[in-house]
Amino acid sequence: MKVIGQTWQFENKPVIIGTGTIVGPEEGEGPLANDFDYVYDNIEINEKTWEKAERKLLEDASRKAVEKAGIKEDQLQFFVGGDLMNQIISSSFAARQMGVPYIGVFGACSTSMESLAVASMLVDSGGAQYVMAGTASHNCTVEKQFRYPTEYGSQKPPYAQYTITGAGCSVVSDKGDGPAVTYATIGKVVDLGIKDPFNMGAAMAPAAADTITKHFKDTGRQAKDYDLIVTGDLASVGLPIAKDLLQQNDVIMDGTVFADCGLMIYDMEKQKYVNAGGSGCGCSAVVTYGHILKRMRKGELKKVLVVATGALLSPLSYQQGESIPCIAHAVALEMGG
Amino acid sequence: MKVIGQTWQFENKPVIIGTGTIVGPEEGEGPLANDFDYVYDNIEINEKTWEKAERKLLEDASRKAVEKAGIKEDQLQFFVGGDLMNQIISSSFAARQMGVPYIGVFGACSTSMESLAVASMLVDSGGAQYVMAGTASHNCTVEKQFRYPTEYGSQKPPYAQYTITGAGCSVVSDKGDGPAVTYATIGKVVDLGIKDPFNMGAAMAPAAADTITKHFKDTGRQAKDYDLIVTGDLASVGLPIAKDLLQQNDVIMDGTVFADCGLMIYDMEKQKYVNAGGSGCGCSAVVTYGHILKRMRKGELKKVLVVATGALLSPLSYQQGESIPCIAHAVALEMGG
Repeated sequence: MKVIGQTWQFENKPVIIGTGTIVGPEEGEGPLANDFDYVYDNIEINEKTWEKAERKLLEDASRKAVEKAGIKEDQLQFFVGGDLMNQIISSSFAARQMGVPYIGVFGACSTSMESLAVASMLVDSGGAQYVMAGTASHNCTVEKQFRYPTEYGSQKPPYAQYTITGAGCSVVSDKGDGPAVTYATIGKVVDLGIKDPFNMGAAMAPAAADTITKHFKDTGRQAKDYDLIVTGDLASVGLPIAKDLLQQNDVIMDGTVFADCGLMIYDMEKQKYVNAGGSGCGCSAVVTYGHILKRMRKGELKKVLVVATGALLSPLSYQQGESIPCIAHAVALEMGG
Repeated sequence: MKVIGQTWQFENKPVIIGTGTIVGPEEGEGPLANDFDYVYDNIEINEKTWEKAERKLLEDASRKAVEKAGIKEDQLQFFVGGDLMNQIISSSFAARQMGVPYIGVFGACSTSMESLAVASMLVDSGGAQYVMAGTASHNCTVEKQFRYPTEYGSQKPPYAQYTITGAGCSVVSDKGDGPAVTYATIGKVVDLGIKDPFNMGAAMAPAAADTITKHFKDTGRQAKDYDLIVTGDLASVGLPIAKDLLQQNDVIMDGTVFADCGLMIYDMEKQKYVNAGGSGCGCSAVVTYGHILKRMRKGELKKVLVVATGALLSPLSYQQGESIPCIAHAVALEMGG
């Protein structure tokens, strides 16, 4: 591995050999439904509390990823995971069930790519053979913890986002077939002073633009080198802001598809209740591991840059008048040949 | 870097070239007071909220570590940090102030050694030159969040521990003088079913014993190879349990000093209010970076194994009747020559 600026270059090209993506019923009504491994028909995920439901999603996704990687559970060497819950309990309880050495990480909704970056580093330079990265979110755990319990039925502004219910895991290996992880650009905390915890897209857009700009600077690549550049969950408010900021940074995005996982996972016409689009750390995880990697394996996409964005606030920091510090971690995925 | 079982072997021996340790007034009354870089005379740390106080400690410690490493702030390439606050806000806000690429981690009180392990991996194998690891805790933030606000004056059982107020940071580099990081053993989640959130020592002891046993198995080392084996915060209840469990695992601890940071930081005779001893993720950080490294630099200790322990519960998981999943990450520190 080589460090260039903020970017890690993985010289041995760790490969994603297996993924598991499990979602809730609302994600099952979206356009990507067929790309996920399993769609629960009930938002309770057959569990008694929302938190146990979120954990169940992550446990299911991890098992599915191990199965699809074609390895046994005891071959897994490390689990790098995190989630939005206080003290990342979903990941820690899933790690207890998995029984492998565990590195807990937190980057809010950027956790998907943060965990994949750390897992890839471990494989690339550490001689680890099988490392899992994973994360999960549940609409009802996250809404309850950060805003109001969904049962209250409180109204939301149209720029608010909808936390997706789902978990995504991947097994990264030093050999095998699949998309390779070639670069990870680790983000700085960017905070332009937005204080409205409903306006995540606007808060996170500058972080996404910053990391994308640094990625190009560090790697010498341009937007046109990628078939798809996809942000985590900027949704309909944040994505145009990120585009504007990239233009201000003199990043030419012509000819490249610039999309957002939060806009891809739902049918924005039919599922009006999602407001500006999806969010939550499961969002970029299930869209990347379920949908994007499938397209890569089919040969429809060769090079993809996934830029997972995270809002690092807590309800308490917001109540104390703090603005929202944001971050974005980008990971480059490439099919060989 | 080489992976052996659960252990990372750092072949290029990353070096801790600078540390910063900042504590509150109660830690300033303990026997290690002179080993810390700065002792605040007020528990408010001159801030208006406990959370801002905790963040201030971490910002101070990071600045001090950079200063003592003899580098400029903009030479720092990555910050690996975490804390006990929901959404690790202390670390994220400190990262905002520092302005460097940021990897948020969470391992409860094991965060000190988890962050040092990840930072060391990044230097050892990534060609990064200057990476910071750091963590902080504050008695009043942690008590409020996990149990009751200290202002309530609620009574505690004698086996309860006392969250230390303090932050510890280190700068890890690929060259320079100082103690080298030679191994990191990443823990599994161990949960023997303890449900009492006051009884952290007993809950965490099995995780410490498990990681120590694995460390010896993976490295071929024995306890007698270390001048000091020190756990993070098992305190007076957990330390004897860990010793018993190690004996059951046929680990021979004769002739090795086996101590605990939570028992070292306070005067257990005079500071009776700490009950069983110190805890919090600042505890092992300030004792290791302040006290232990000082002794290593003086030549009093050559090889030390720091086993930071963490209880991965949240108030919510406890309220839902869950037991406490625990983890321990061990890092081996060695003076050359």
